[in-house]
Amino acid sequence: MTTQYKLALIGFGNVGQGLAKILSDKHSFLKAKFGVDIRIVAVCDLYKGSVADAKGLDPAVLLEHIEARGDLKNFGDLNTDWDASETIANSGADILVELAYTDLETGEPAFSHVKQAMNNGMHISMTNKGPVALHFPELKRIATKNNVQIGIEGTVMSGTPALNLACEMLLPAGIIKIQGILNGTTNYILGEMEAGADYASALKQAQQLGYAEANPAGDVEGHDAAAKVVILGNLLMDLSLTLADIDCSGINNITAADIAQAAANNQRWKLIGTVEKTATGYIAAVKAMMLDYDHTLAAISGATNAITYTTELMGDITLIGPGAGRLETGYAIIEDILSIHKNCH
Amino acid sequence: MTTQYKLALIGFGNVGQGLAKILSDKHSFLKAKFGVDIRIVAVCDLYKGSVADAKGLDPAVLLEHIEARGDLKNFGDLNTDWDASETIANSGADILVELAYTDLETGEPAFSHVKQAMNNGMHISMTNKGPVALHFPELKRIATKNNVQIGIEGTVMSGTPALNLACEMLLPAGIIKIQGILNGTTNYILGEMEAGADYASALKQAQQLGYAEANPAGDVEGHDAAAKVVILGNLLMDLSLTLADIDCSGINNITAADIAQAAANNQRWKLIGTVEKTATGYIAAVKAMMLDYDHTLAAISGATNAITYTTELMGDITLIGPGAGRLETGYAIIEDILSIHKNCH
Repeated sequence: MTTQYKLALIGFGNVGQGLAKILSDKHSFLKAKFGVDIRIVAVCDLYKGSVADAKGLDPAVLLEHIEARGDLKNFGDLNTDWDASETIANSGADILVELAYTDLETGEPAFSHVKQAMNNGMHISMTNKGPVALHFPELKRIATKNNVQIGIEGTVMSGTPALNLACEMLLPAGIIKIQGILNGTTNYILGEMEAGADYASALKQAQQLGYAEANPAGDVEGHDAAAKVVILGNLLMDLSLTLADIDCSGINNITAADIAQAAANNQRWKLIGTVEKTATGYIAAVKAMMLDYDHTLAAISGATNAITYTTELMGDITLIGPGAGRLETGYAIIEDILSIHKNCH
Repeated sequence: MTTQYKLALIGFGNVGQGLAKILSDKHSFLKAKFGVDIRIVAVCDLYKGSVADAKGLDPAVLLEHIEARGDLKNFGDLNTDWDASETIANSGADILVELAYTDLETGEPAFSHVKQAMNNGMHISMTNKGPVALHFPELKRIATKNNVQIGIEGTVMSGTPALNLACEMLLPAGIIKIQGILNGTTNYILGEMEAGADYASALKQAQQLGYAEANPAGDVEGHDAAAKVVILGNLLMDLSLTLADIDCSGINNITAADIAQAAANNQRWKLIGTVEKTATGYIAAVKAMMLDYDHTLAAISGATNAITYTTELMGDITLIGPGAGRLETGYAIIEDILSIHKNCH
């Protein structure tokens, strides 16, 4: 038995294109093996244009078009003049895939998109940390009211199933502490500094490789990791954290001398996000820390991410995997859809 | 809404007692948070005796009795003279928790127990590798025929949810290779040898700590890891492996000189289980290998286990966690029950 899921994509950058690539290659496999017939029925991108087809757009054709032209214009009959809100209202989609840009101050415009979609009875899959870090309790209330589901696997560690693992299999073991390398850009920069580069040239290299933004503050000052700490604490520890609750600093003050001093003690610097329940409340922080070489998180190199969940019944469980990437984050949406599918059947 | 699950335990050693401890401490938490009211209605242990109560045995009382007396005799009205087969037939349980001893040649007596239980309409949770490594295709057929489920999370990496993670979240990403440290005893011994012990004294230490059996062949010759490779290949790659298909060797020939030679190359020895699909078939092996210090699996120390799943869409995903232990393996049964619960609702 197969269930059809019709997706409306808001935003068609790397993640949306990664999702289209996966659906282009794996649509039949996912249908045959997991019973999900996943179709993109609308794409709306502020800059690239809007297309829709209730029967499903061919993801390979979308990608060819983007590669050839850089946008989704000149699609003939399939082009619409819908903005995001009209796409949500008119596309007939079952699931809103929210991939608009991240704003960690307001969560907009994504927050408005997902509210509208849920109130229209649509499920949500989003890789955008903004609305989740800022408004998760409200999103959950709206989802419950409308009997829809919210998938957020891609907001932490891209498609590495860190949230699903914890929600489905570790919560019953009692999660008492979460600690992780949650930002690949800073981990890459620290690795380059350990190999001899100074901060400025390591940052430049990260930018050239596409890891760091032109304005790298969100990564190097720890804000991106802090948003993930908020998400982890609220989702897995029933906290009501906001970004202001995170004791946050970054790697931008770490010098070559700091790196050398750590190495002299068989240690290396890592930017560590932590959230922990304590007798009196919680600790929630993002801090550069010196870890012994044999610490599990000290071994995580390059742009890889990792989270250690400390549980009451089983001690430490660590998951290591990609923290970013086109296919890797696109796959998070597939995981969200499969979770929606399981919970509906 | 709460669903009641009545368990019959065959075997009441470390794992059964770990499960009883978890239920003693966490019964209300699991009921309130996850909707499962888990009760032990029968325990049958070849040596310790048999008890049953259709309303549910108090797990704390079971543990006190075992601690005080070493067995389950003198329980008055609750004692039965049932053997395993009669326990399965008479206890009124919904789930058979099969914890009898592991026999990697015949899978018995566990194999007969689980067949009888499934034919009686009971779900299965087992941490016993024997029947799973030897008879998994047949077990699946019997389960399908009877519309019951088989939980086997505890057969690999104890309660660390390695199988669930892969089945639920990584199969859709295309698992092309699985590689892991699947046996804690040998990993502990190799670590002690790296710290300077010779093989014989490291083995003796592992035995004193309870990691290795009096007859350590199953661990040090690689058979335990080989059984896990069979389980991983058959469950996750649709192979039909038997133990004879595994190219298996152990750590019993590794010398202090081998360890020193590896260290001179910035490497260390690890006993690695591998199963990989190839153009012409598969590779399935257990071998001691020298890994570079910066290899993810090289950092796994002591009795900890780890598995790296290489996926088509996301590259490497590694899960690290306990590979054994009373509560850790007892928790695997809780995970199995929660999976049965999810799949039935």
